[in-house]
Amino acid sequence: MRYQLYYHPTIQGRGEFVRLALEEAGADYVDVARRKGGVATMMRIIEDERNARPPFAPPFLKAGNLLVAQTANILLYLGPRLNLAPRDEAGRLWAHQLQLTVTDLVVEIHDTHHPISSWLYYEEQRSAAKRRTDACWRNRVPKFLGYFEQVLQKNGGKYLVGGRLSYVDLSLFQIVEGLRYAFPKRMKRFERKIPGLIALHDRVAKRPRIKAYLASTRRIAFNEWGIYRYYKKLDG
Amino acid sequence: MRYQLYYHPTIQGRGEFVRLALEEAGADYVDVARRKGGVATMMRIIEDERNARPPFAPPFLKAGNLLVAQTANILLYLGPRLNLAPRDEAGRLWAHQLQLTVTDLVVEIHDTHHPISSWLYYEEQRSAAKRRTDACWRNRVPKFLGYFEQVLQKNGGKYLVGGRLSYVDLSLFQIVEGLRYAFPKRMKRFERKIPGLIALHDRVAKRPRIKAYLASTRRIAFNEWGIYRYYKKLDG
Repeated sequence: MRYQLYYHPTIQGRGEFVRLALEEAGADYVDVARRKGGVATMMRIIEDERNARPPFAPPFLKAGNLLVAQTANILLYLGPRLNLAPRDEAGRLWAHQLQLTVTDLVVEIHDTHHPISSWLYYEEQRSAAKRRTDACWRNRVPKFLGYFEQVLQKNGGKYLVGGRLSYVDLSLFQIVEGLRYAFPKRMKRFERKIPGLIALHDRVAKRPRIKAYLASTRRIAFNEWGIYRYYKKLDG
Repeated sequence: MRYQLYYHPTIQGRGEFVRLALEEAGADYVDVARRKGGVATMMRIIEDERNARPPFAPPFLKAGNLLVAQTANILLYLGPRLNLAPRDEAGRLWAHQLQLTVTDLVVEIHDTHHPISSWLYYEEQRSAAKRRTDACWRNRVPKFLGYFEQVLQKNGGKYLVGGRLSYVDLSLFQIVEGLRYAFPKRMKRFERKIPGLIALHDRVAKRPRIKAYLASTRRIAFNEWGIYRYYKKLDG
């Protein structure tokens, strides 16, 4: 099966959680919108009047005739197929539950720099962004990452789910990567509270396929257009 | 199977999407935290050190030995069991994809009155709330509800998914209810743009089990502690 991933070509964003899963599994896939004319193809699919099941937004995945959207839903679909999720129903629901909690955290992180609207520039919501960022690091980041640290430790410390790597581990790797980029000072102080997650991050970074991916041009660099953005004032 | 639902006993909140599904199906369930001592029981489960798969937050559902959290995940699990979702994989993923888009909309609606932090009072973030609400009604509500209206019309106008009622229809009923409560003036002006969803809302409200539920004490009244809150200034 050759998968077709559709996501914005200039950011890691939510698509990155899917890219990491496809890369780790060595799956045959095309990152369509990064190819010539790919963005137009992506927009055509979103706006296709004949499609009875249109995606609300990227990322979405085509697998044969199936079109699946919503990041966590794509991973729910791919998980067992890529050997990155348990096969039993209870295990699949548990991995998905954790991924939906990652999804919630991603919104919290995004909204630190855009608490009023994504349709406005950061500069138009700077003071609200500073307040939201402070609140996020006081209450939300510790609660979410403390929870994942606890889940990891209860499961033996090596993986979040079951006895081998799952897409949830890859997603937590990406959360750590992103927070380090957007909030280098805050994250440096915070990391001692989540030693298990940091060790997990480091193990994931060393996995042969992930390591090769991160060094390749397929990995888009962090920048000021994605979920994670570095604004010096917000890291203060 | 007797289901045990755990959710805050004083608000509709995210738990209401699950309650509506259980009620429409005539399922055997207990709304645990609304019973005497139920909140303590709920907190004990969340904080139980021996539980290898703890929920991050309510709502969560116990079904025998299984504990499922995250609203959309609970509905993913319950859907086929309550005859409120397609049985084939593609259909289940599609219904879930729509539910995850409802989840995203719920965050947008909640954050109108709490754009900075849920740990602060509304009064401490009033001006940011006004700006976020204006932006939400300019960009987000039209985009989300316009999308669901389009999906509904493409599917024949009666149901959002397939040929009979699903939990997604119940969730859209709840979205309309909540927006009418929180933003009566704005919603009144907006409803002409989503005639199909309004008609769907009215049909759901008349279904015998839903009608009986809405008239019962099991339905918690809207109030100023939930996702949907009425602040006159935000409805201006």
